[in-house]
Amino acid sequence: MDSLRCDGERLNGRIERLGAVGRLEDGSCCRLALTDQDRQGRDLVVSWMRELGLEVRVDRVGNIIGLRPGSEDLAPVMTGSHIDTVATGGRYDGCLGVLAGLEVVEALNERGVATRRPLAVAVFSNEEGVRFQPDMTGSLVYAGGLAVEAALGLEGIDHSRYGAELERIGYAGGMEPGAIVPSAFVELHIEQGPILDREGGALGAVADLQGISWKEVVLRGSANHAGTTPMAMRRDAAHGAARLACFVHDLALELGGVGTVGSLRLEPNLINVIARLAAVTVDQRHTDERVLRAAEARLEAFLRELERSGLEVETRSLARFEPVAFDPGIVRVIERAAASLGRPIRRMTSGAGQDAQMLARICPSAMIFVPSRGGISHNPAEFTDPAHVALGADVLLRAMLELADS
Amino acid sequence: MDSLRCDGERLNGRIERLGAVGRLEDGSCCRLALTDQDRQGRDLVVSWMRELGLEVRVDRVGNIIGLRPGSEDLAPVMTGSHIDTVATGGRYDGCLGVLAGLEVVEALNERGVATRRPLAVAVFSNEEGVRFQPDMTGSLVYAGGLAVEAALGLEGIDHSRYGAELERIGYAGGMEPGAIVPSAFVELHIEQGPILDREGGALGAVADLQGISWKEVVLRGSANHAGTTPMAMRRDAAHGAARLACFVHDLALELGGVGTVGSLRLEPNLINVIARLAAVTVDQRHTDERVLRAAEARLEAFLRELERSGLEVETRSLARFEPVAFDPGIVRVIERAAASLGRPIRRMTSGAGQDAQMLARICPSAMIFVPSRGGISHNPAEFTDPAHVALGADVLLRAMLELADS
Repeated sequence: MDSLRCDGERLNGRIERLGAVGRLEDGSCCRLALTDQDRQGRDLVVSWMRELGLEVRVDRVGNIIGLRPGSEDLAPVMTGSHIDTVATGGRYDGCLGVLAGLEVVEALNERGVATRRPLAVAVFSNEEGVRFQPDMTGSLVYAGGLAVEAALGLEGIDHSRYGAELERIGYAGGMEPGAIVPSAFVELHIEQGPILDREGGALGAVADLQGISWKEVVLRGSANHAGTTPMAMRRDAAHGAARLACFVHDLALELGGVGTVGSLRLEPNLINVIARLAAVTVDQRHTDERVLRAAEARLEAFLRELERSGLEVETRSLARFEPVAFDPGIVRVIERAAASLGRPIRRMTSGAGQDAQMLARICPSAMIFVPSRGGISHNPAEFTDPAHVALGADVLLRAMLELADS
Repeated sequence: MDSLRCDGERLNGRIERLGAVGRLEDGSCCRLALTDQDRQGRDLVVSWMRELGLEVRVDRVGNIIGLRPGSEDLAPVMTGSHIDTVATGGRYDGCLGVLAGLEVVEALNERGVATRRPLAVAVFSNEEGVRFQPDMTGSLVYAGGLAVEAALGLEGIDHSRYGAELERIGYAGGMEPGAIVPSAFVELHIEQGPILDREGGALGAVADLQGISWKEVVLRGSANHAGTTPMAMRRDAAHGAARLACFVHDLALELGGVGTVGSLRLEPNLINVIARLAAVTVDQRHTDERVLRAAEARLEAFLRELERSGLEVETRSLARFEPVAFDPGIVRVIERAAASLGRPIRRMTSGAGQDAQMLARICPSAMIFVPSRGGISHNPAEFTDPAHVALGADVLLRAMLELADS
């Protein structure tokens, strides 16, 4: 099997063809979940699945699973990702994982390779969460984290209903989500960050995924004249927000992980008036739940310090997810696959949320990352070198083969 | 003369009557310069001037000067201020100085007191600068700092012309601005800051006025995923802006004066995206030009440091005024006037711009401050205790008497 390889040209060609569905004038892809564009993308992928002889099943929240039988009637080895995009997305995010799964199947078909376990290629619904929240809806329901009825009842930002839109595009299937429990799940994805690109194009074996703590912090002080109010008599919400943003940054440097203030709004936001209000978002992430909790506690203590300095502080949690540790055994399988191809691979963390984190709840899971040029994602400039695309698929192929025959 | 006093009730009554012109539902005053409301306010003040027997002159940029003859034909002692307001202003800002001048005249008239020098009460045009920029237009032209034609050509935020609006409201006078050069100028004004109120209601003898340096700083970094971009690989414009705001604050604590970041705008301003752009305003003020220059130089050096950290920095000066030192002799006259009334007065700085800073270019000038409750100004809640109003007018009266008889 050492000579077994994916056809990189074919895979990159499919990425281009799927990327043309919902393409906007600036080159970005707009296939928000359960829209007509999403249906066109699904139709294309399902047509490819059928051409490859896969048995296509659709579950009640619209997840699509293409099955290739194994020589024994066992739980399948699953791969896959999503094909919905953000409003101005790229061609690789999600699509790479689905289409590389198809490429693995096609490579095996061409060589007439049978596997002991069945293989499954999944397309999970609404991973991006732009139209319907929460994000990763399909895989979340598949893993039992959200009831089917709750998902079908979700209201979109356009006031549509998830269930009605799913019916409308013809992807309200009959299978119960989670009915097929995989023996293992491996997802190939672009990194969406700069690390692999900066390191010269190595691949990544993703061993864990950061926990996320999102908060909105509102600071209230007093609006006063910037000329006539002495420094010692100020209750300056903008200065409090600035201190907070520096604190979040410095704390991430100290504890590891990442910390970001990406959104900040002042009132009245005038050059010569001390701000009476600052609304700030805080994004803290870490792979270790204990450290993430420590970071949250340190943030809390800092906010109490801002209170003592004279500001009113109001905090609201916007999101909280614990870190996910992927299965070490699957990570090692991925590393062996890369080694067998003579390619460097480095263990790493996923900074973004992924369908694999949901599947990790029901089966041993891990991920393969390929470099994103410049770390750019969710952007028409999102790009991964075709050679890295092919290499990622080869690692996926070998990893799935090892898992399917074990 | 020791028993000569202003009629506080009469003065506070005029403040109420002028405050009713252009009053909005929330109680604020809206008399933007050269609007119909400004005309109504001017008409009211001019009618009072005439009732008091003042000779009313109007100059080419709409400054109104009411003259009370002296026993000798000398340069007059002038007082005054402005009656235009911000969009939602209070009743005291500016109006107090004009109406206290009328009260001084009325108190002298009642007692039949003649002064050696003439007295003049001035109403300067467009001090607030909300409708036409620059602010303090009338006093600036009066002091020779801006040509008449340039002022008349100013375009308003509503695309009106200063000259045309002045004609329209009937205040395009014939006198050349600055034709009457005062022997001294004393302006009574509310503090618009919290110092006197916090100190229990003492008055202020304003010895100087802060210089102002206003800048807009635009920081450019890279928009990247807040989860997948390691701290060390970021070019975070929001973090740069936060550091800048803290720096401006700390620098003012170190050098004295005040420093404010009151306006801050991020792009794309999303919770999970590192900001690619931050637009920040910096307001630095100090009474000592050398220190203000040092503060600007330190700011400049800090911005170079931000550049070295990977951000692009673009700086634009929005305004720059040198500090004004008022005339020490006039300040002492004011202090003596307060002492003769047995009232405490403290030397202080004006944090805001004032007409008196322009008059200081052509004659010895200084100011008297009365407390602003809570330091609040440019707000319908602007308030000065009626007793402080009366006391300020009494100090003005005695100071003008000393100056007029010297």
